[in-house]
Amino acid sequence: MKNRDNLHKKLDRMFFPGSVAVVGASDLPGKWGNLILISILGWKYAGKVFPVNPKKDTVFDLQSYPSLLDIPEEVDLAIFAIPARFIPDGFRDCVKKRIQAAVVISAGFKEAGEEGRVLEDEIADIARKGDMVFMGPNTMGIASAHHNFEAIPTPTPVEAGGLAIISQSGNLGLQILKWVAHKDIGLNIYAGTGNEAMLNTTILMEYLGARDDVKAIAMYIEGIPDGREFMEVAEKVTRIKPVIALKTGRSKTGARAAQSHTGSMAGSHSAYEAMFAQKGITGVRTPTELLNVSTAMTHLPIPKSKRVAIMTMGGGWGIVAADECEDAGLVLPELSAEMISRLDALLPDYWNRRNPVDLVGEGDAGMYLKVIEILARWDEIDAVIPLGIVGRSGYMEDFIACQERMGGELYTRELKLSVLKNQMQNESRIISGIARLQKETRKPIVLVALSEGGLSLADTDHGKVISLSSPEQAVSIISHMARYGMYLKQRTS
Amino acid sequence: MKNRDNLHKKLDRMFFPGSVAVVGASDLPGKWGNLILISILGWKYAGKVFPVNPKKDTVFDLQSYPSLLDIPEEVDLAIFAIPARFIPDGFRDCVKKRIQAAVVISAGFKEAGEEGRVLEDEIADIARKGDMVFMGPNTMGIASAHHNFEAIPTPTPVEAGGLAIISQSGNLGLQILKWVAHKDIGLNIYAGTGNEAMLNTTILMEYLGARDDVKAIAMYIEGIPDGREFMEVAEKVTRIKPVIALKTGRSKTGARAAQSHTGSMAGSHSAYEAMFAQKGITGVRTPTELLNVSTAMTHLPIPKSKRVAIMTMGGGWGIVAADECEDAGLVLPELSAEMISRLDALLPDYWNRRNPVDLVGEGDAGMYLKVIEILARWDEIDAVIPLGIVGRSGYMEDFIACQERMGGELYTRELKLSVLKNQMQNESRIISGIARLQKETRKPIVLVALSEGGLSLADTDHGKVISLSSPEQAVSIISHMARYGMYLKQRTS
Repeated sequence: MKNRDNLHKKLDRMFFPGSVAVVGASDLPGKWGNLILISILGWKYAGKVFPVNPKKDTVFDLQSYPSLLDIPEEVDLAIFAIPARFIPDGFRDCVKKRIQAAVVISAGFKEAGEEGRVLEDEIADIARKGDMVFMGPNTMGIASAHHNFEAIPTPTPVEAGGLAIISQSGNLGLQILKWVAHKDIGLNIYAGTGNEAMLNTTILMEYLGARDDVKAIAMYIEGIPDGREFMEVAEKVTRIKPVIALKTGRSKTGARAAQSHTGSMAGSHSAYEAMFAQKGITGVRTPTELLNVSTAMTHLPIPKSKRVAIMTMGGGWGIVAADECEDAGLVLPELSAEMISRLDALLPDYWNRRNPVDLVGEGDAGMYLKVIEILARWDEIDAVIPLGIVGRSGYMEDFIACQERMGGELYTRELKLSVLKNQMQNESRIISGIARLQKETRKPIVLVALSEGGLSLADTDHGKVISLSSPEQAVSIISHMARYGMYLKQRTS
Repeated sequence: MKNRDNLHKKLDRMFFPGSVAVVGASDLPGKWGNLILISILGWKYAGKVFPVNPKKDTVFDLQSYPSLLDIPEEVDLAIFAIPARFIPDGFRDCVKKRIQAAVVISAGFKEAGEEGRVLEDEIADIARKGDMVFMGPNTMGIASAHHNFEAIPTPTPVEAGGLAIISQSGNLGLQILKWVAHKDIGLNIYAGTGNEAMLNTTILMEYLGARDDVKAIAMYIEGIPDGREFMEVAEKVTRIKPVIALKTGRSKTGARAAQSHTGSMAGSHSAYEAMFAQKGITGVRTPTELLNVSTAMTHLPIPKSKRVAIMTMGGGWGIVAADECEDAGLVLPELSAEMISRLDALLPDYWNRRNPVDLVGEGDAGMYLKVIEILARWDEIDAVIPLGIVGRSGYMEDFIACQERMGGELYTRELKLSVLKNQMQNESRIISGIARLQKETRKPIVLVALSEGGLSLADTDHGKVISLSSPEQAVSIISHMARYGMYLKQRTS
């Protein structure tokens, strides 16, 4: 317990440093020590930054120091972007200067062969004996958005939020981080663990599990050496927050590639699947699913069962969604007589009287919301998927382009603008109504929009609303969430 | 044979009309007869357009006629957007005026119950006896991009190209059409078949199969009443061009929804799967796959086997791609000694010497292209998936944003612009090199880009290059294409 508290204090210094030294800092465009520094300085980081580079007096107008030992102030975190062979000396300097946290960006360790493995053992040994922790080696860095701190080679302005990411792959992890930034999902902490010579996925899962501002943890895993420890931690963490994992290397070729990548043993995929299921970890199969499911679990209520109601603007979408639900193990309960009579009051005569409820292209924002409310409050279901009621702005733009080709004189500019404004107001009314219902009923309402970009988030006074551009993506989200909801229910019953 | 020629002549008049009458034309915003008319007039259609509306003298400055019979000129196609009960009289007018092709947008037929079914039989009977053909009823229209003709309720400026679409669902069909337009995939013909009272998927597949400018046919199917006829036609068409089908209603709920939607019997899904496999139809499971696979089959060479080479900028992506390949039944052959020695000359010492070939973040455009060329010319494989080498423009924008937060004075504007320009030139060099290799080797090279929008197309002098934003999407494309390639090989051997 005391050990863990000590460890977490060191991790606090790593992710929330008051001061950071960049060993190998450079102003030469494209160098790792240049990119990492730009990512720290170009963010809103308020702490002190000390470049370390014996060949420079200044880097980016900051005084540069020949070594860590020459820095006249206390340093919380040292980041290394220098050739692997110089890291042991750098670590010794850390120990001397009582720097207790380091990030080793440099490659050329275990993943590069026997010589690298020896070097990796050496730095791990120095760290252990010197009471310091380090991330990597062979990592693409870390970020801590609430602290406005980011040290990665792909500088990214990312907003603070509730999703934490642990990634054993730098390129995949940073791509997901880009998605998180560009889609305004909100990042908590990003931890690229690289070769995991000391800090590993399990340790970070426990650390992030204990942080209140972390709402969900997404993990990219190639291999976990200590399965038992992982399971113990997972059991504790998944009781309080969702953990979503993409475990790769399930194929023979993939497993071999994983081994040569970060030197990790992939292990049997079915063993991981069993472990995930037993400990309430949400296993996904692709990076896109990792992003989509993690985002939903960060922002939406978790459904308590696998029963879903679908509302669709047209038959085709409803059928695709129903097929996907059945494939994913979700259930679409038949409408009761009472539900039918409630909906009869709103829908045209010839509505289909089934789940999926087909609006046959009719209705307006008010009607959509009434139908969604009736469905969301129906106690036979725990999630709602409305299809085709938002995302028409692309349609409107095309429409206006066509009108303009007709000479643009058919409708006045005012009329066109008012149509567009009306459209936007309607959509924002729908989205805000859905957010309110989602909050009140504690059931996720995941939209399928007429769009092209996959996952998209809308912010409202009542929280986030999520939409996808294709039914299968919404179904995948709900089915993964439902499985976690049922795990939680079973654990507490 | 003569019958079919006659039928195809009528379909030519439908899809390439010299003149078209819109029955129910309206200038009231939002009405079906308004939207359809805007879609015709707002496109570049060069033929004559005759609004028919007894309550109006003019619609959009065009003279309006009380009935079809009042139009003083020949009419190739009549489009109906009036209540169902008025269609029989409209059809009788068509017969009298020798209009041989009609599109019935109106709903309220078989899908609406017994009364509608009687009405549908009645109009089909009038059409048959009057030697006319019609699409629908309950269709959202048709489009013929090479003729600049489009009659749909969601006016869409779409460029002409090689992909034809047949859809039994209006909403799904038009969403796919939007994707085709916004992603510059290039449309040939769009046929929304609706209830298929006369013209059906099979008839249209045969018609589109016979048109040289159609390069691939994408179909959304809820049900095919005459399986034998469908199979006969499919066998002929898939010999000369790819046919890609999304058959829905595979679940119980989905099948019931399909029946209430267009009144079609879904039939057993496994029967469809067997039929597709036997006749070389490429079956997909989701709308996104339908779009992605159809686009690739329209623009890229078809691989002759399921053997693939992967090149990746980083380990994680390669592992995900390898897993997905194995799941999809693709094979990643091991590199031969000769291949390894060829690649040794280009790659850093510590490269992994396996397929996926991991560039470990090294290299430039010239090196990427050399590696891709060696892989593409390797006779053990028939497709290449390069991961992570294009799509960095979002990264560059973030990078510049970070620099600007640093005061924007670290690098001059000129330097930043030159970095961006360099980046763009590199990417365009890579893409053009890939297009050339793809053309020369007749093997598809499908990129995975660091992007967010899913499918994306780049145009070059040597043809299109396709990129996706996640490995599983590229793998899905290659695996579907490979299955078709092997079908063709087996058919001709």
